[in-house]
Amino acid sequence: MGDPAGVGPELCLKVISDPLILDSCMPVVFGDARVLDRVAEAVQTSITAATIPIAEWPPGTVSAPLVVDCAAMSGGKLVPGRLSADCGRASYVYVQRAIESAQSGHTSAIVTAPINKESLCMAGIPYPGHTEILAESAGTDRFCMMLTSDIITVSLVTTHLAVNDVPAALSTGKIVEVINLTAEAMRLARGHDPAIVVCGLNPHAGEHGLFGTEESDVIAPAVEQARAAGINVDGPIPPDTAFIPGRLRQADAYVCMYHDQGLIPFKLLAFDAGVNVTLGLPFVRTSVDHGTAFDIAWKGEAEATSMVNAVLLAVKLAGVQE
Amino acid sequence: MGDPAGVGPELCLKVISDPLILDSCMPVVFGDARVLDRVAEAVQTSITAATIPIAEWPPGTVSAPLVVDCAAMSGGKLVPGRLSADCGRASYVYVQRAIESAQSGHTSAIVTAPINKESLCMAGIPYPGHTEILAESAGTDRFCMMLTSDIITVSLVTTHLAVNDVPAALSTGKIVEVINLTAEAMRLARGHDPAIVVCGLNPHAGEHGLFGTEESDVIAPAVEQARAAGINVDGPIPPDTAFIPGRLRQADAYVCMYHDQGLIPFKLLAFDAGVNVTLGLPFVRTSVDHGTAFDIAWKGEAEATSMVNAVLLAVKLAGVQE
Repeated sequence: MGDPAGVGPELCLKVISDPLILDSCMPVVFGDARVLDRVAEAVQTSITAATIPIAEWPPGTVSAPLVVDCAAMSGGKLVPGRLSADCGRASYVYVQRAIESAQSGHTSAIVTAPINKESLCMAGIPYPGHTEILAESAGTDRFCMMLTSDIITVSLVTTHLAVNDVPAALSTGKIVEVINLTAEAMRLARGHDPAIVVCGLNPHAGEHGLFGTEESDVIAPAVEQARAAGINVDGPIPPDTAFIPGRLRQADAYVCMYHDQGLIPFKLLAFDAGVNVTLGLPFVRTSVDHGTAFDIAWKGEAEATSMVNAVLLAVKLAGVQE
Repeated sequence: MGDPAGVGPELCLKVISDPLILDSCMPVVFGDARVLDRVAEAVQTSITAATIPIAEWPPGTVSAPLVVDCAAMSGGKLVPGRLSADCGRASYVYVQRAIESAQSGHTSAIVTAPINKESLCMAGIPYPGHTEILAESAGTDRFCMMLTSDIITVSLVTTHLAVNDVPAALSTGKIVEVINLTAEAMRLARGHDPAIVVCGLNPHAGEHGLFGTEESDVIAPAVEQARAAGINVDGPIPPDTAFIPGRLRQADAYVCMYHDQGLIPFKLLAFDAGVNVTLGLPFVRTSVDHGTAFDIAWKGEAEATSMVNAVLLAVKLAGVQE
């Protein structure tokens, strides 16, 4: 459900009543029933799903959308759009329950609504975001972040790392892994053999070693390995021409060496409509690609496109669609 | 005139007959009259300007467009679309004559047509491009590259440098200089006090020092200095959200810390229509923002938008428009 004080609860209300979603899967919200009641009243809608307490999850069968009440906010103070330790703690509880459910096979995928890093921090939970919570719970450091939309998809070899530390963090093995994970996910998402473009690190992809050798030393060998394994992959491509319109139309996904190499073109082209995917976890995980949007929380103004797309993509990646 | 075997000659033929250009300035082409003759025949047009030999430059008055014949290709072999030492040498001669003319005040600005780095190299002239030739001839290392278009304008604090070397190459003084040069150029180009956005270096602009400290140590002090000097400047902004549509509309120009931070969004949005400007030289210099396009050279297919825009911008920057 994400942070109770953000737009997460109203996005969940939309998800459990969206015909497109109900056609493709059975949504289960791990959240707080009382919070959803208050939000439904605030945005003048109603909860279109039955509620059960977390103690009764999983029930014998799930034949309709369901709210699983974690009761993590009972007694906690809740002001819409306000940072609080109570909300940080509650949003952590929701995702933990969702992870347990996915790991024990009761749910096929996790879709996360936005949480607030500062509220998490106020609750003494020192994670920069969902991705790190999920990776730690899953006991893996082999994961990567992919952002996807109809127009552009990017996977990141390094993520929240200073530019100064990026070159040393690149390795052929890591790049091959990101190419493989991206190709596998895009094959499921698009239903065809995807075309993957791997960006260089340096200007003009190093211009034959004139400005940097990571392309020849690290990236090109990764591209060759992936190609030898049968992946349709091209690179290392000069980053500045990788995203021009002609190439964008041909590439199913880009493998980017650092955060802003992928995120600058992604946010420029698909701001707010994208879906964030964590690849490499033992369960499928997608997420909205925006924050808690405290300024419009509980006002019925939240745009559910990213959340709906996140659910639909999770269904494809989990391969559970009928 | 740029490389004789590329699209430069036909772009020059268009420039000297373009009504918009003739309305705003008096174009003088430093090139080869015989090459222009051959190209005019190939693309079925004619030279609409008088020709004088370089020895007679400058004449007493210039009252019409003029071709200054450097005769640098006489005796040289010339095949359209083909790399050659002769063409590399000739394109170097044209720009040298243009620089001498600008430095002695006979012309108000230099607009360069595309040259070919490999042909230059075959001629034993070891420059990566026009910019470095111009800077060396002008005896300055205080210059910066700006790419500008109607949609997006970016100035680069570092240019052809490996990512690994970028953090150490940033200094507050250099950033202030680029902000100043950019603000001054955009004031002339746009006719109003420009809004300048300065990007951070790291993801999320370092997230308060979590991934890199260049923002607080180097970039923020530069922004403060420039603001104190009266420039309308904002930053350091997280690079991934700096170029989203809402911000693009408000920013007259971006100051970018490295090549691809600026060039990825620029080429995505303004591929082929942009103008390349070298700021900080003792004379105005603009350039087309594309290469020699050997595949379409001498075919009459070259798009002159970037070249025409480069001339019109040079006129504004030189302040010579009537």
